Amino acid sequence: MQRGATEPQIQHITKHLSSRGIRAERLDGHDQTVIGIVGGSGGYDIAAMGAMPGVQEVVRVSSPYRLSARTGHPEDTVITLSDGTRIGGDAPSIVIAGPCSVESEDQLRRTAECIRKAGVRFMRGGAFKPRTSPYSFQGLGFDGLELLKKVSEEFDLFIVSEVMEPAHVPAIAEFTDIVQIGSRNMQNYPLLRQIGNIRKPVMLKRGPAATIEEWLMAAEYILSGGNENVILCERGIRTFESSLRFTPDISAVPVIKQLSHLPILVDPSHATGKRGFVSSIARAAIAAGADGIMVEVHPDPDRALSDGAQSLTFELFEEMMGELVRVADAVNRPMLIEQYAKRSNAEPSGSEKKTASSKA
Amino acid sequence: MQRGATEPQIQHITKHLSSRGIRAERLDGHDQTVIGIVGGSGGYDIAAMGAMPGVQEVVRVSSPYRLSARTGHPEDTVITLSDGTRIGGDAPSIVIAGPCSVESEDQLRRTAECIRKAGVRFMRGGAFKPRTSPYSFQGLGFDGLELLKKVSEEFDLFIVSEVMEPAHVPAIAEFTDIVQIGSRNMQNYPLLRQIGNIRKPVMLKRGPAATIEEWLMAAEYILSGGNENVILCERGIRTFESSLRFTPDISAVPVIKQLSHLPILVDPSHATGKRGFVSSIARAAIAAGADGIMVEVHPDPDRALSDGAQSLTFELFEEMMGELVRVADAVNRPMLIEQYAKRSNAEPSGSEKKTASSKA
Amino acid sequence: MQRGATEPQIQHITKHLSSRGIRAERLDGHDQTVIGIVGGSGGYDIAAMGAMPGVQEVVRVSSPYRLSARTGHPEDTVITLSDGTRIGGDAPSIVIAGPCSVESEDQLRRTAECIRKAGVRFMRGGAFKPRTSPYSFQGLGFDGLELLKKVSEEFDLFIVSEVMEPAHVPAIAEFTDIVQIGSRNMQNYPLLRQIGNIRKPVMLKRGPAATIEEWLMAAEYILSGGNENVILCERGIRTFESSLRFTPDISAVPVIKQLSHLPILVDPSHATGKRGFVSSIARAAIAAGADGIMVEVHPDPDRALSDGAQSLTFELFEEMMGELVRVADAVNRPMLIEQYAKRSNAEPSGSEKKTASSKA
Amino acid sequence: MQRGATEPQIQHITKHLSSRGIRAERLDGHDQTVIGIVGGSGGYDIAAMGAMPGVQEVVRVSSPYRLSARTGHPEDTVITLSDGTRIGGDAPSIVIAGPCSVESEDQLRRTAECIRKAGVRFMRGGAFKPRTSPYSFQGLGFDGLELLKKVSEEFDLFIVSEVMEPAHVPAIAEFTDIVQIGSRNMQNYPLLRQIGNIRKPVMLKRGPAATIEEWLMAAEYILSGGNENVILCERGIRTFESSLRFTPDISAVPVIKQLSHLPILVDPSHATGKRGFVSSIARAAIAAGADGIMVEVHPDPDRALSDGAQSLTFELFEEMMGELVRVADAVNRPMLIEQYAKRSNAEPSGSEKKTASSKA
Repeated sequence: MQRGATEPQIQHITKHLSSRGIRAERLDGHDQTVIGIVGGSGGYDIAAMGAMPGVQEVVRVSSPYRLSARTGHPEDTVITLSDGTRIGGDAPSIVIAGPCSVESEDQLRRTAECIRKAGVRFMRGGAFKPRTSPYSFQGLGFDGLELLKKVSEEFDLFIVSEVMEPAHVPAIAEFTDIVQIGSRNMQNYPLLRQIGNIRKPVMLKRGPAATIEEWLMAAEYILSGGNENVILCERGIRTFESSLRFTPDISAVPVIKQLSHLPILVDPSHATGKRGFVSSIARAAIAAGADGIMVEVHPDPDRALSDGAQSLTFELFEEMMGELVRVADAVNRPMLIEQYAKRSNAEPSGSEKKTASSKA
Repeated sequence: MQRGATEPQIQHITKHLSSRGIRAERLDGHDQTVIGIVGGSGGYDIAAMGAMPGVQEVVRVSSPYRLSARTGHPEDTVITLSDGTRIGGDAPSIVIAGPCSVESEDQLRRTAECIRKAGVRFMRGGAFKPRTSPYSFQGLGFDGLELLKKVSEEFDLFIVSEVMEPAHVPAIAEFTDIVQIGSRNMQNYPLLRQIGNIRKPVMLKRGPAATIEEWLMAAEYILSGGNENVILCERGIRTFESSLRFTPDISAVPVIKQLSHLPILVDPSHATGKRGFVSSIARAAIAAGADGIMVEVHPDPDRALSDGAQSLTFELFEEMMGELVRVADAVNRPMLIEQYAKRSNAEPSGSEKKTASSKA
Repeated sequence: MQRGATEPQIQHITKHLSSRGIRAERLDGHDQTVIGIVGGSGGYDIAAMGAMPGVQEVVRVSSPYRLSARTGHPEDTVITLSDGTRIGGDAPSIVIAGPCSVESEDQLRRTAECIRKAGVRFMRGGAFKPRTSPYSFQGLGFDGLELLKKVSEEFDLFIVSEVMEPAHVPAIAEFTDIVQIGSRNMQNYPLLRQIGNIRKPVMLKRGPAATIEEWLMAAEYILSGGNENVILCERGIRTFESSLRFTPDISAVPVIKQLSHLPILVDPSHATGKRGFVSSIARAAIAAGADGIMVEVHPDPDRALSDGAQSLTFELFEEMMGELVRVADAVNRPMLIEQYAKRSNAEPSGSEKKTASSKA
Repeated sequence: MQRGATEPQIQHITKHLSSRGIRAERLDGHDQTVIGIVGGSGGYDIAAMGAMPGVQEVVRVSSPYRLSARTGHPEDTVITLSDGTRIGGDAPSIVIAGPCSVESEDQLRRTAECIRKAGVRFMRGGAFKPRTSPYSFQGLGFDGLELLKKVSEEFDLFIVSEVMEPAHVPAIAEFTDIVQIGSRNMQNYPLLRQIGNIRKPVMLKRGPAATIEEWLMAAEYILSGGNENVILCERGIRTFESSLRFTPDISAVPVIKQLSHLPILVDPSHATGKRGFVSSIARAAIAAGADGIMVEVHPDPDRALSDGAQSLTFELFEEMMGELVRVADAVNRPMLIEQYAKRSNAEPSGSEKKTASSKA
C-alpha cells in the first residue's frame, strides 16, 4: 500500500482478496502497510489490483512458470536423440552448424562435408525463412527440407530447421531431428501449443526483446502441452548499442542455469551479425557454461542469399572449432567431436559414438 | 572501406558489384575511400559484403520499404469503412474503446453503452488472446466474436478484434470491421501474408522491440499482398525504464507521419499498463498528431479476467473523452463524436453521421 | 526465500536482521516463505542479503527517496523567481528558449528579440558545453556568461545555463537565474552536493539511461543539502530505436507527477535531435501535464556551432508557440506569455506581469 | 538527399559545403542523390545539415575518434607499471580484486592476504564512492587512500581507486597506481581533461548507457590531453532485462579490440550485481579476449557497507581464480600469477616477477 493509504482502503483490499478465497497477511510497518498473498491466487490476476485506491505496487515474489523452473525439477533436463546422443546436463557441449538458408544441394553437401570433418553432428539449414522484407529470398520450403534430409542421411547428421506456422508442425517434425522456433515466433502461442503436442526436441530461440521470464513462460507453453524436450537458444537482445546487429546476452546462460533445468545454447552468428565476432562470442558462451552453440557456415558467404555477413567461411569455422575444443576442456564440458565413418555398401554408415573431447 | 584498405581490396569490391550488374561509384578521400551504390542492388543483399576484406561498414541510404513509404505516395492514406466513416488524413480523430477480453454479453453490452454514450464508434474486444502464461485466460474464441457481433450491431459500433493464426483470418475478417495484428505477431510473416490477401482494414500493432523500419517492413508484407488498408498502432516499447509496463513512444507518431502515408493510432493502455496514466498519454498522442487512440474500458476493472490494472472505469473513460475533445480541437483534428440514434421499428438504427468535434 | 529454502536458512536470515535491530515478519506460504522488513533498515543495505543462502530476491517496497517523494510532501513544489514568476504547481506553463551555445552577442540579441516577441521570459544558452568530442566547440566559458547577462538584462529575461564542475558553482549561480545540471552530470555527486549548498533554482536533467528512481535519488542529493528549488527536465532516453537521437519519454511526466512534488519540464530539442520533430513533442509534453518545455532556437541553425540540426528557426519557433498556447489552454495550464515593455530612461523596464494565456 | 529532392535543394547543399571549403562529390542514382563529403569537414559540424530542405540523413562514415582508433595505431597499447608489469597486448591477463569500499585496515589486510595468496598483483578499493543515495556510505575519503597505500606496500600490490572530481586528481594520482574513472563520470569532461594532464595509467569505465563510440570519444579526451595510458573497462550496460543489475556486454571486448588499440578489462561484479554470476562472466570475458578482469572480494560480504551482494567470498574468489587460469591458458593469454615473497628485514619485499600461467 502507499504511504498514507487509509484504513478503509487497506480493508477494502483484504476483503477483495478474501472474497476470492485468497489468503492475505497484513504487515503494518512504521509508515506503510504491506499485504502479503500467501499460496496461490487461484487463477485471479492479482496485477489487476495495481490500480485500486491506496495500492502502491503489486510485486510478484514467486515465479509464474512452474514446469520450466529448476525448483521442483532440480536435476538438469537432458535431451536424448535417436542414436543416444545427448544434449544438456553433463553431456558434451555440442555445435550446430550450417547455412542460414538451404540454397542448393551442392551448397549443402559442401557444408556438411566441412562440418563433419570437424566432428560436428548437428546441421542447421533454413527451408522456411522469416525475412524482415517481403522482397527477400523466403527459402526453398519443402524442397529445402528434402535436400536437408538427403544430405543429412548421407553424412549421418542431425537436422535442425525452423517451423513458422502451426499447420506445418507435423510435416517439419518429420523432416528434422530438432524443430526450431525462431526468435520472431517466441510468443506465437498457436505455434507453441502445436509444438507442445509433438514429442520431437524443439529449440526455442529467445525473442530479441524478451525478458528471461517471458522466455521461460514461452517454454512453459510447450512443456505444459506435454513436450518436455525443450532446448533454449540465446541469440542476442536488442539494446541501444548498435556496433553489432544485436547484443549477445552471455549472462542469460548462468541466469537460465540457475532458474531452469532446460539446456541452453548460444547463437553467436545472429547475436553479432558479423563473422569476425562469431568465434569470440562462441568461446565466451562455452566458458560461461552453455550446453553448446549454433553457428552459420557457408561455402561462399559473400554470395549467400541470406545473412552472408554473419556466416563463417570453412576456414574460419575450422579455426573456431579448434579454439572451442580447448575452452570446453578448460571448463570441463568437452565438445562432442565424432569422426565420420563413410557410408559403404558393406556396412551401415554412422558415427563412431562418443569420441568426445580434444583429448580423446 | 576502412582507412588503410588496399587498392586490390577496393578493386575486389567494385568488381564484385559490377559482376552483379550493380553500378558502383568510387569516392577517394584523403585517408578513406567510399564506394557508393547507385540505383538498386537487383535483389543482391549488399549487407553480405559487410565482412569482406577492407570493408568498414555497409550503410543503407535508401529505405528498404517502398509501398509504405511516403516518398512515392505523398498523400495520406485514408481508410474508409462501410458507412463512409474515415480514418487518417484529415478525417476526425477516432477513439477505439472496449474491454481487453470479451468475457460475457453483459460486460460487453454495458461497455458498449458507456462508450456509445460518449459518442465513440469503435469497440475493441479480444476473443482470441495471446497471453504470456499458458495458465491465463485465453479468450472465448469464436463465441466471443459472436457476442461482439451481436452487441456491435445493436449499438451501431465498428468492431476491432485480434487474429492470431493464418487459418483464422477469413473467419475473423467476417466478424470484424478492423482486424488486429497484435504486437507479438508483428513479424509473424505467414499471418501477414494471409492478411495481405484480404481487403478488410487491418490494424498492425508495433512489436515492443521493433524499430520503426521493421514495423514499416511488416506493413510492407500486407501492402505487397494487395491490402492497402493498413493502420499502424504504437503500443509502447521495451526500454530500461520499468516504472510502467512499457515506454510509450510518442515520437513514433511524427516519425511515422514523416516516413509513411499510413494512419497511426496510439494505445496508451498497453503502453502504460496502469489506468492512472492512460489519459495523459492519450492526450499526448493526440497532441503529437496521432489519428486516434485505442483504450481499454471495463465495467469493473478490478474483476477483469485480463489486464484489469490498465482498464479505465466508465467514469475515468468519460473524463478522458472530455479532455481529448479539447486537445483534438487545439491541434485542429477534432474527435469523431457521433450521437447514437436508438434502433426502432419505424426507422433503421444508425449514427448521425459526422457530428464531429466538441464544438459541433 | 527460494522455494525449497531450508528452515535453518530462514532462521539465519531472521537472526541476521534482528541482530541489526531490524524488525522482520515471516509469512509462510504453501510452498514459499516471505520475510517482510517493517520500518526502516537503519542504514543497513538490505540488498547485500540478496546472495545469502536460500534468498531468492530482495524486493524493495518503499521508495529509497524521501525528500523528493510526494508522500510526505503532497502539495506541488512551486519555484518562485526574483520578480515573483512561478514554475510548477498551478502556475502557467513556461517556455525556455535559446541557442544551444552562446556564440556571439549578435546571435544572442537576435534570439532574445525573437523569443521575447513571442512572450517568452526564459532564455537558455550554453557557456560551458559538455561535448562528446574533445575536438568540438567547447563554449565561450565566462565570456559567454557575461554576454548572457548583458542581453538578458536588456530584454528582461531569466537566464538558464549549465554548470559542469563543482568549483564553478558559485560563479555560475551569480550569472544565472536557474542553474542547469546537464544529463551527463546527473550522477556527478560532488557537483550535486555543491548545488545543494546554494539556494538558486536548479534544473536537473535526466541522464539518458537513468531510471526515474535514480533521477529522483539525484534530486535527493540536492534537496538533502538544503536546496529545495529543484526542477526536473526530461530530455530523451536511450533505447533501441534510432530514428531520432533519443526517445522522448513523455510518460516520465505523469510518472513524476505521481511520485514527486517537483516541477517537470521536457526538452524536445535534445530528445529528438531534429527540428522537424520538436513541435509535436513539445505539444505532447504540455498535453501530458508538463510544467513547461525547453527548446533550442538559433537565428541560422545550419551555421550553428553545436546542435544545429535540432535548433528551431525563428519561423518554426513562432509557429510552435502558437500551437503550444492552444494545447496549454486545452489542458487548463495556460502558457506564461508576457509582453515586453521596452527599457526607457523614464521608467524601469520590465514585463507586464501575468498576462498569461492565449485568451488573456 | 530524399527521394524527390529538387535540383535547387541539391545545389544549395553542395554550395553550402563548398562555401566552407569542404569537398563534396555528387552521386546521382536512379531515384535518389547522394552527396559524399571527402576528407575532413574542417571543424564544421555536418550533423547540423540534417534538417536542411531535401536532406534525408547525414551518415558519418569515418569514425570521430582518432587517437583511440586502431587505424593509425595498429599495434596494441601496452601499459607498463613501475616494476615492469604490463597490461594489454600480449601481456598476461590480469586480475584486479578487492572490496567495493575501503572500510577498515583489518578488512583491507585480510583481503590483500587472500588475493595475494592467489597470485594477484592488483587491488581495488573505493575511498571516494559515488553512491546513488545521499544516505548511503560515501567512503572514507583520504583516510581510505592512506589505508590502501599502507596495505598495498606491505603486500606489494598495485592500487586501483576511483577519482570523482577534478580537484582531487593530483592527490589521488599520488596514492594509486591506476586511477579509476567510474561509469557515472565517463562523460565528466572537466574530470577527463584533468586526467589527460597526468601520466598515471587510468582505467576508464564505460557508462551503462554509453555506446562504444561515446566511450572511445571519452578516451579521446584523455589521450588528446597527452595521457596515453588508458585502460578501458566494460561493466555492464542498461537494457530491458532485469534479472541482473546490468547486462554484461561481452561483445564489447572483440568490438573494442577491432576498433581500438587500448587494453580492455571486464568487471563482472558490477555487471551482474550478484556474486553467483561473477565467475561465469569472468570466464566469458577472458575467453572473449579481454586483457583482464576486475572483481569485488570481501571478507564478509553480507556485512559489507556497499555492494555486498556482488562481492565474492574468499572461497568463491579462489575457486574463480582456478577456473580463470584454465580458461586463460585455453585462449593463449595465461594469467599473471605471482607468488608473494614476504617482506623481511634482510631483503626488500617484492614479487617473483613473471611467474605467470598455470603451467609455469
